[in-house]
Parts: sequence; C-alpha cells; structure tokens
Amino acid sequence: MSDTPAPVCAEDYLELAQRRLAPDVAAYLFGGAEAELAARRNREALDAATLIPRFVRETPPAPPNGPTLFGRRHASPLLLAPIAHQRLFHPDGEAASVLAALAQGVTPIVSSLASTPWPQLRQLAEDEALWFQIYWQGDRAATERLIERAAALRPEAWMITLDAPIGGLRWRLWRSGFRLPPQAVPANLEAQAPTQRTHDLAALLALAPTHDDLAWLRDRLRQPLLAKGVLHEADAEALARLGYDGLVVSNHGGRTFDAAPASLTQLEPIARAVGEKMTVLFDGGVRRGSDVAKALAQGASAVLVGRPYVAALALEGAHGVARCLRLLRDEYAAVAALL
Amino acid sequence: MSDTPAPVCAEDYLELAQRRLAPDVAAYLFGGAEAELAARRNREALDAATLIPRFVRETPPAPPNGPTLFGRRHASPLLLAPIAHQRLFHPDGEAASVLAALAQGVTPIVSSLASTPWPQLRQLAEDEALWFQIYWQGDRAATERLIERAAALRPEAWMITLDAPIGGLRWRLWRSGFRLPPQAVPANLEAQAPTQRTHDLAALLALAPTHDDLAWLRDRLRQPLLAKGVLHEADAEALARLGYDGLVVSNHGGRTFDAAPASLTQLEPIARAVGEKMTVLFDGGVRRGSDVAKALAQGASAVLVGRPYVAALALEGAHGVARCLRLLRDEYAAVAALL
Amino acid sequence: MSDTPAPVCAEDYLELAQRRLAPDVAAYLFGGAEAELAARRNREALDAATLIPRFVRETPPAPPNGPTLFGRRHASPLLLAPIAHQRLFHPDGEAASVLAALAQGVTPIVSSLASTPWPQLRQLAEDEALWFQIYWQGDRAATERLIERAAALRPEAWMITLDAPIGGLRWRLWRSGFRLPPQAVPANLEAQAPTQRTHDLAALLALAPTHDDLAWLRDRLRQPLLAKGVLHEADAEALARLGYDGLVVSNHGGRTFDAAPASLTQLEPIARAVGEKMTVLFDGGVRRGSDVAKALAQGASAVLVGRPYVAALALEGAHGVARCLRLLRDEYAAVAALL
Amino acid sequence: MSDTPAPVCAEDYLELAQRRLAPDVAAYLFGGAEAELAARRNREALDAATLIPRFVRETPPAPPNGPTLFGRRHASPLLLAPIAHQRLFHPDGEAASVLAALAQGVTPIVSSLASTPWPQLRQLAEDEALWFQIYWQGDRAATERLIERAAALRPEAWMITLDAPIGGLRWRLWRSGFRLPPQAVPANLEAQAPTQRTHDLAALLALAPTHDDLAWLRDRLRQPLLAKGVLHEADAEALARLGYDGLVVSNHGGRTFDAAPASLTQLEPIARAVGEKMTVLFDGGVRRGSDVAKALAQGASAVLVGRPYVAALALEGAHGVARCLRLLRDEYAAVAALL
Repeated sequence: MSDTPAPVCAEDYLELAQRRLAPDVAAYLFGGAEAELAARRNREALDAATLIPRFVRETPPAPPNGPTLFGRRHASPLLLAPIAHQRLFHPDGEAASVLAALAQGVTPIVSSLASTPWPQLRQLAEDEALWFQIYWQGDRAATERLIERAAALRPEAWMITLDAPIGGLRWRLWRSGFRLPPQAVPANLEAQAPTQRTHDLAALLALAPTHDDLAWLRDRLRQPLLAKGVLHEADAEALARLGYDGLVVSNHGGRTFDAAPASLTQLEPIARAVGEKMTVLFDGGVRRGSDVAKALAQGASAVLVGRPYVAALALEGAHGVARCLRLLRDEYAAVAALL
Repeated sequence: MSDTPAPVCAEDYLELAQRRLAPDVAAYLFGGAEAELAARRNREALDAATLIPRFVRETPPAPPNGPTLFGRRHASPLLLAPIAHQRLFHPDGEAASVLAALAQGVTPIVSSLASTPWPQLRQLAEDEALWFQIYWQGDRAATERLIERAAALRPEAWMITLDAPIGGLRWRLWRSGFRLPPQAVPANLEAQAPTQRTHDLAALLALAPTHDDLAWLRDRLRQPLLAKGVLHEADAEALARLGYDGLVVSNHGGRTFDAAPASLTQLEPIARAVGEKMTVLFDGGVRRGSDVAKALAQGASAVLVGRPYVAALALEGAHGVARCLRLLRDEYAAVAALL
Repeated sequence: MSDTPAPVCAEDYLELAQRRLAPDVAAYLFGGAEAELAARRNREALDAATLIPRFVRETPPAPPNGPTLFGRRHASPLLLAPIAHQRLFHPDGEAASVLAALAQGVTPIVSSLASTPWPQLRQLAEDEALWFQIYWQGDRAATERLIERAAALRPEAWMITLDAPIGGLRWRLWRSGFRLPPQAVPANLEAQAPTQRTHDLAALLALAPTHDDLAWLRDRLRQPLLAKGVLHEADAEALARLGYDGLVVSNHGGRTFDAAPASLTQLEPIARAVGEKMTVLFDGGVRRGSDVAKALAQGASAVLVGRPYVAALALEGAHGVARCLRLLRDEYAAVAALL
Repeated sequence: MSDTPAPVCAEDYLELAQRRLAPDVAAYLFGGAEAELAARRNREALDAATLIPRFVRETPPAPPNGPTLFGRRHASPLLLAPIAHQRLFHPDGEAASVLAALAQGVTPIVSSLASTPWPQLRQLAEDEALWFQIYWQGDRAATERLIERAAALRPEAWMITLDAPIGGLRWRLWRSGFRLPPQAVPANLEAQAPTQRTHDLAALLALAPTHDDLAWLRDRLRQPLLAKGVLHEADAEALARLGYDGLVVSNHGGRTFDAAPASLTQLEPIARAVGEKMTVLFDGGVRRGSDVAKALAQGASAVLVGRPYVAALALEGAHGVARCLRLLRDEYAAVAALL
C-alpha cells in the first residue's frame, strides 16, 4: 500500500482511511473501548482460525451460493452492518452506502442513528429489501414511535442492538476531541440526546430493554426480528424462547465492552446451541475473504461488514463502497473455490 | 495522551507519571523485582481475562453496589492500597491521599511506613473508617509497640503484609541511584532501619513472622484482621484456621518476588477454597474499570488500587487522587452496566 | 549477513535475495496469499517443533541414509520442488537448477510451467531420474496432451498439484505490478492462459480435477503418481484408495490459501493415516537442516525444497543452486548426527 | 545499564559483555546453533516458570543450605560450568575463574579444552575440590591418555559431555570470522584438531562414545562420574543402569542442536525418573537468582553457571568472576528467603 493508493483488496481501505481521515474521524471509526483489547481479540481470533481445504471428494460440493435468509436468496454472504452517522464520513452518507450495497447485491441494515432521512433511503432503494436496526429508546413508547417512523423503510427484517445500552469507554475517541458535526446527527430521531458520558449506574441500566421489553418487541413486529450483540449461549437460547428469528454474534467491534471475548470465539458454541432454530449471523472484524469463509465454517449463515465499507465510503463515496464490497465478495468466492 | 495531558481514564496517570516524575522516583514507583516479569504477568493475566456480557435475563440483576466488608457498606469496590513513603511523591503525602480517598468513598489502608504522623491522619479523617497495614517488626515486642502507636488511627481493620519480609531485588530502583529523601522516611516508627540490602539468609528469615507470631497477632487484635500477599491456597486455608477475617491475593505488584505468578491467576482457586469463610480481596495491576470487573468476577469482594493513585498524587496532589479514583469508579460502573 | 554476502547456510540465500532481487520478482518469490498468514504458520510450526536427542543407546542407530523412494535410493532426503517460470530468476532457468540439483544428488521435479523446453532438460539430465509436476489442464483431453508432451522428460514419477486450481489472492504480488516477462512464460504448454484474476466461482471450480479425473489420471500413468497439496487426512485416504503412490503434505508455501494450517501441523496425522500405504513427502517452509530433521521425525520420507534454491538460482545461477543444496544437505547431516 | 557500568546483578555482565567484547569473541560467547532457537527456548522456559511462595507454615522450613553432592556440602547451589578456551576472554583465563570460584565457595568444573595447564590449576586450587569435564577423544586409548593427564587435577568428580560430539552449526560465529587465537588453544591435549567443519556423517558419528564406551569409562574411574547434556528420560535411565552417579540436564546452551527443547522443560521429567538414583544438575540459561530457585524447585540439586561468569571474566578477570558469583549467590539467597 505504501507505493500505490489503489486498493487491491477490501482491507486496503482500512489502511488508506487510517492515513487519510481527519484524526478525530479516524478515532471515531477505528477506536475501541478502553485499551482496545476486544477489537484486537476479534482480529487475533480470525487470524488464528484455519480451514483445511479438501480436493478429493467423490461427491464434489455444489459451488457455494449466497445464503437464503428469511426466504430470500442473497447474492453473497455479506450484509452491510448498521453504522451510525454516515454523513460524518462522506456528504452522501447512507444514501451512498445503501445504493452501492444494493448494486452489489448486499442488503443494507439501516441504523437508528442514520444521518439521512429514512424515506429518502426507501426511495433510493426502490423495491430492494432493506433491514432496519433498532436502538432501544429507553422505554416502549419512545421505541414504538421509532418503529412507526422506521416503517417508512418497509424493513424486510428488524434487528435490535442489545450490546450498547450506553456508549463505551472510548478513550481514543475522547482524546481526539471528536464532536459529531451537525450534518451527521441522527436525521430521524425525536431529539438529540447529548453525548452520553454519565456513569450513574441506575440511569444507565434504565436505558436497556428488559426481558419483557424484548418480548413486547417480538410481539409488536410482524417481520423477522434479530438481536445483535449476543455473546452468551444462554442469551441466544433465551432469544430463541422469545421467538426471535435470528441473532448476530458480535462484540460491537470492540467499541463498547473491552473485556468481551472475540466474536469468533463465541460463534461456534452459539451456532451449535441455536443454529437449528435461528439464523445466526456474525459480526466482528471481518475484512478479508478468508474471514468470511472462517465465520461461515463456524456456523454463521452470513456476516456483517462494517469498518471496511465505511472506510471506503469516506475515501470514495458510493463508488468506494461498491468497490470494497465487490472486492470482498470476489475474495470470498476465490477462497471458497479453494476450499 | 501524546497531545493532551488531561487524563481521560485512571490509567492515564501512569503514563503521565512515567513521563514527568524524576527518574529515580519513577523507578521507585514503577520498578519491579529482577526482570520485572511478575509485574508483567499481572497485566498479561488481566488483559487476557474476558467476561461474557448478558443482555437477556428473565430476572435482571440488581445494579451492583459497593461491597459490604466487615459489616460496613462501601460506596465502590475500591480500596486504597497501603503505599509507603507517600511524601516522596508529593509534599502532602498521605494526608492528601487519605482525604481524597475518603471524599470518593474509598477506604484508605494506611501504611506502617507512612511518612505522615498517624494521629494527623486520624484527625483529617474525622470519623471515617481507616484500615491499617502492619509490617512485622522482627519480633512480637516491637510489633506490639507498632500496634500501640497505630491505635491512634483507630483502624476499622488491620492488614498484615506477609510477602515482603525483605526488600526485593529491585534492579531498576538500584540503578536509578534512588535514596529516600528525609521528608519521606517513616514518621511513626521507632528507628529507621538502614536500607536493607543484606542477603544473609538466616537474618532475612528471622524478620518474617512465624506461624505462631501470626496466631499471636490474631489474638492480640480485636478488630477484623486480614493478611496481604497470599498466593497459595494452603496459606489461605492456614489463615482461615488461624481465625483471620480476610486476605489479599497479591504478589506485591511484582516488587519483591519476580518468580511469582500473576495475582489474578491465583485469585479464583483461593476464592474457591476460602471465599465462604473469609473476605477475599485482590491486588495486582488494577488500573482500569474492566480490571475491577474481572477481579470481582473471579471471586474478589473488592480490589486494592495502588500505583494509579500514587501517580495521580505525584502529579496533582489530593486533587489528582480524587480524580483518579472517581475515574476508576466511573469506569467500573460503566463496565458493570454493560455486563 | 550484514557484513558478508557469502552464505554460510542455505537460509542465507533467502535474505540475500530479499535484498537484491527486483521488488516485483521478490514479491513473486516471497509473497503469499492475502495477509500471508499461512506462510508465517509454516515457519512458526517448524520453529516451535523440537527434537529430543539421544546419546546413550545400547544399539546405536545406523547413520541415516537418504531415503529409498519408489525403489531408488536417494543421496539425501531433499527433492527440488517444482517451481514455475524459473527463467524469471536467471537466464539459465530450469536448466541451471536441474543440472545443479542432479550434481548434488537431488532429484528435480520439473514444473508444468517450466520456462525451458522439456526435451532440453531431459538431454541435460542424461540418464538421471527426473520427476514431473502436472497442473490439471481443465479437462482430460488437454491434460492428456500435456502428459504426452511431458513424456519427453521420461519422468520417473508424476506429481499432480491439487491445491492451486486457481491463483491465490496474492496482494503483495499484485501491488508490485509484476508481469511475467516473455522469457519466463511456459515453454511447453499449448497456449498461454492470461493471468487468472477472474473470480467467477463456477469457472474457477471447473478448472480443478474431479475425483473421477484423478482416477483417470491414475489409470493413465504407469509410473508412480503422487498428489501435491494434501492437508486433510480424508483426502490422503481417498488418494490411497485411488491407488496413488504418494502425496506431498503442502499448503503451497502459503501462496494460494491463507486460511490453511501449517503444513507441519498436518504432517503427523496424515503420515499416521496413510504412511504405511503411501510415500509421504513434506513441503512447507523448509530452509534449515533442522527443518528437514523435524519433518522426517514427524513422518515424511523426504522434503521438497523451494524458495531457498530459487533464491540461490536468482543470485548465482547453477552454482548457487548447487551451493544451496549442498549447504542444506550438510546441515541436515550435522543435525542428524546430533540426534 | 545504559547510564552506569556497575553491575547490580549477575545478568548485567551479559549485557556489558555484549557491548564491550570484540564482535567475534562476543559471537563465540553468545552465539547459538542455526537460528538460535534452543538458546531462546532456555530463557523463555525460565521466564515462564513461576513459583508460589508460602508464608504461613506450621513448621517453617529450615533455611536452604547449599546442597551436599557426593558427600561434600557446597556453600551454594552453584557450580562453574566447564567452558573451553578461557584465555580467549582474559589473559588469566581458567586461573582467574578457578581462583574466583573457589573464593566464593563454588566448585569449578575444569574443561578438557582449558587453555591453562591443569597442573597449574591444581596448584592454584591448593586442597580445594575441582571437577573435570571429559570430551570423548574419539576412541578409548586417546580418552585414556586424557584421563591420565587430567589426573593431575585430582578431580573430585568427572563429567563427560555427551551432547557435543561435533561442533554445532554456529552461523553467528562463522559469520564473525572468529579464529581461536594461539593463547586460547587447549593447553593439555595431544594435538590440536583443526576446527571441525566436516559433515561426513559417518566420520562425525565415529567421534561420539558408544554405549560400551560409556560403560568402559564408568569402570575406568573410581570417583563419581556424571554425564552432561542429557535431555531424554531414556538416556537418564540408561545412565543410571550404567552406574553413573549423576547427570546434567543441558542443551549445551543452545550451541549445538537448535531443535533441542529448553533444558528446563526436560528437567522435571528426568528428575522424576532418576532423581532418587542419581544427582540431577541443571544447565541452561541460568543468569538470575530466580532462575536458580526455579531449577531447584523442578528437581535439580545444583545448577551450572556458564555465560555470566565468562562475561565477567572477560570484563574484569578474577575480580569479575568473584563478583558475578557473589551477586548470583546473594540473589538466590534473597529469592529463597522470599519463598
């Protein structure tokens, strides 16, 4: 990468962005919680995982196709992770990433904290499927209003984030002096909560959905519903009992809870526990074709891609997102062919 | 930290102090024994430990409160480790750290080697609880005199240090040319022993309390009595049999015995062995909110904080100690909320 | 190596080549797939392996001789790995390496992609044994034509490469701007396929031989037939059932599939599974005498040497290849004597 | 060490010597075989080992004394490893190290390859005990003549080195251009063999003693006889059956066989296997007081110290050796007291 800025693989966008983004924006995109150990664990677990290829089979496997999720066939095992505030990275923000993802056959998961109006995203997407990510709004009434507004997106599936009831202890970000610029604030929420730095425990805990809230949410929505941020088998089984259709094994990219294990470490036990009952997705450090293959081999049906496409968005807008996703999809295809 | 000197987390005080303290004082504060492997093991064990958060519980856990130790409820699971010679770091020495800790609801453990007169500390603390750390004085008569003088502190609990009968092989310190300045010598002891560098084995061993001495001490004191520096389950069980009320799993911050395992490695087996009979505390490299959570998850009721608050004392006096403890307490609250 | 360019061990050629080769040629020789983790795993596994020497035996072992492979005694346990395009590295290309290897008693495995006409290599080798490496040509007819042309080499044994049906994701190479120069293109193939960068999965998979193709190949050839690139025990057992005479445990030097485990990790289980039925060879990072001893101790009959001799070829032509192989053979002899 | 040249611990002599010795002499002293992995394994195993101190015992242990080896009480658990060619490092050579060691109560093991006449060493030692290290001289007759000449030393015990039948593949040394200067050649051998770089396997193997040779040697000598360089339990048991009195677990400091495991890794199984029948000593990277304690905890009766005292000899002659040994003995005493 030192000589040529042209990315030859999806991962290159991360390095390029680290060199070119404004320091505070880079701190926002790349920073993790506390000592950033959980983010490092994600990569270490992926790097350490191996796959043993087979070349001599009496019945050769069918070429891997994209997965079928909730009755719809996807073109590849990639999904666009719900990243907040995308106009922070590029003026086109979520409009660029949604359009580019759809062009590559990748379903975007639109964030509660999108900086672009949801109706506009729905219009751009025409008839293509979108998913929607829910942040619990502190209580059912506020969450109900969020859902009603998000109905404008006509989500094919809903995904509630469990693992970030509060912002993490993001030292790198705080040191950078980062402030969310006006164009990147949530465009669809009732009111902007001030940046959350309180640590009153009772107040913090009150922001998270209870078990009954999660049951209410399941009843409230007719479409498939997933939970994001699951690391514990017992949580996975509780979600299955609540009737959730899927879950995302994720430690939120190491951004909130630095003591968390690597996402990959938790994937296999969770997939074994609930994989027959629920759709298990993976999120946590994916940046290479072989990462995708490793997550799939350990039980995921598809993987969420986050930082790489945002880095590409920051550098090249919609064109970058499309290129990043195409590179990653092709990398996965090549790796899958070698397996 | 390279751009801004304002600490955003408790750990920042360590880095700031390493850059700003006089080299010999930094060597005293940060140096460990021999090759400093035990100190490194402390951090490696804490960094490697993980906690799996839960988000879906039918019965949500009560928000964690500070622990109740010997009948008194503490505001947080933090205790101020007994650090000697604090006027070495700041003219206000122990007076500053005791006042700041009490202001943050953290109980200080006053050192045998405090450089501030104990009656003065008692006066500053008004009616707040203090604990007192005992260094065995070579024999019972001298230790008896120490206890009598320390009674001026009216300690709520006593804590005898077992693991530093002699000074360690502190190469970094010795190379620094460090000498204890006059204002930092023990203000409460009978006579200053010259810096201990003899290695006559019999003489060294005679300085440590015997099993009978420990039994005598238990009988001698009416208040709760803890032993600090326990790493072996058999020692923990022997202390339980002697009637000790608690113990601190600690390798003395790696300052005395470089072959010692990480404190954290020993915590869980010791807590399993005696946790129902004794109060088990943890000491050994704590500098982050997640460290506190990890020690508690492995069986500690509370943790001792040492170097971070001394670094803060050195840089900002009582104000620094208070800020450091508040940062750490808030970090822990945020981590606990995410669990 | 910093002071003197004279190699004292075979491994020195690697360092010398890394410093002296044109960057794109070095990228071709040393680059691996994706993040080059598989290549690193090869070395880490070899470095971590240990051998416990014995000095007190009632019956001393016979001095180790070169292995007997398919009825012929070899002078050492080294074989020349089939490396493509050798005129890329030196004008004398395969002619130099074949001659030098034979002079050192090492059997060369000539590549399908040799840049020197096979009849010329047969002539240079006089009556010495050569082996031939087959790349499947997409279908049986094209592979049949390859075999017919390769018959000019009168191979003592054939070796089909299983693990590189497509080129790997070789980022380092692609970034280097490498293009195969005219003098290094395959000199013996029907037509030059353009550099393979397509990732159409179905097209890629069609290039690999099926189970039936492998059976056909076995029937087609009268001489011993080995398969190269085996990492999975089940593949090894399937090859044994197909009547293959041997296999090479190899991850292709980490050049194609970055998620592959280290070759050495797979050697012992494969040797245990099929070692009595087949000749098991090893390929994967060998560059020192102790590497050879480790692979043999874990069940290989001989090892393929690749990058070291090509580095020597690049730097010193036939003379370098001969010196590199002699150094490695002598290193192995010294290590074997110490065992 | 960067500011002050005064060593505060034994290990400091290693760093000082690495900075001050002529490069080729440093290469001779510090270089290992091949990639120097075995030397690194020695240190990694010692650094990774931990000891759990005990402070609460009903029956306190007697202060550790030096061991009794073959009926004689030693002042400390240290022995001077037999290092060849000591006049390479200092004009006073073995005379300096023998005198200094005896002054510190440490028994020297005089090398077959000493550069000082053995009668002179006997004279300097007056009535103190010396041990003698035997290199097998290729056959019994030549070895018999070596023993007869070495009788001038009146060795209390003999130690035959098993693990260096040939010189190792010492790349660092060879690159340094090292040649043994005239004053450092063996002063007591029949004829100087030219530096051994041949790799004719049969010739190399013929230089090593056979099982029968080892039995002959045992019969030949009336004093205690040890074997140095044992790493395999089966060798240890064979030596016990041959009537050997002791052994040294050693990988020759990683100087001969780079695939060897760490000495420490092999110590405990060997001590368990033969510790009741034989005196088990340890050699392999010892440079700190805690290293000595770790080896003793894993079953060694005493440890051989090598490179540290030679570094001290090179820098400060007899004075340095004495200081180095006193530092190491005091370090061990302090560590033992803390246990």
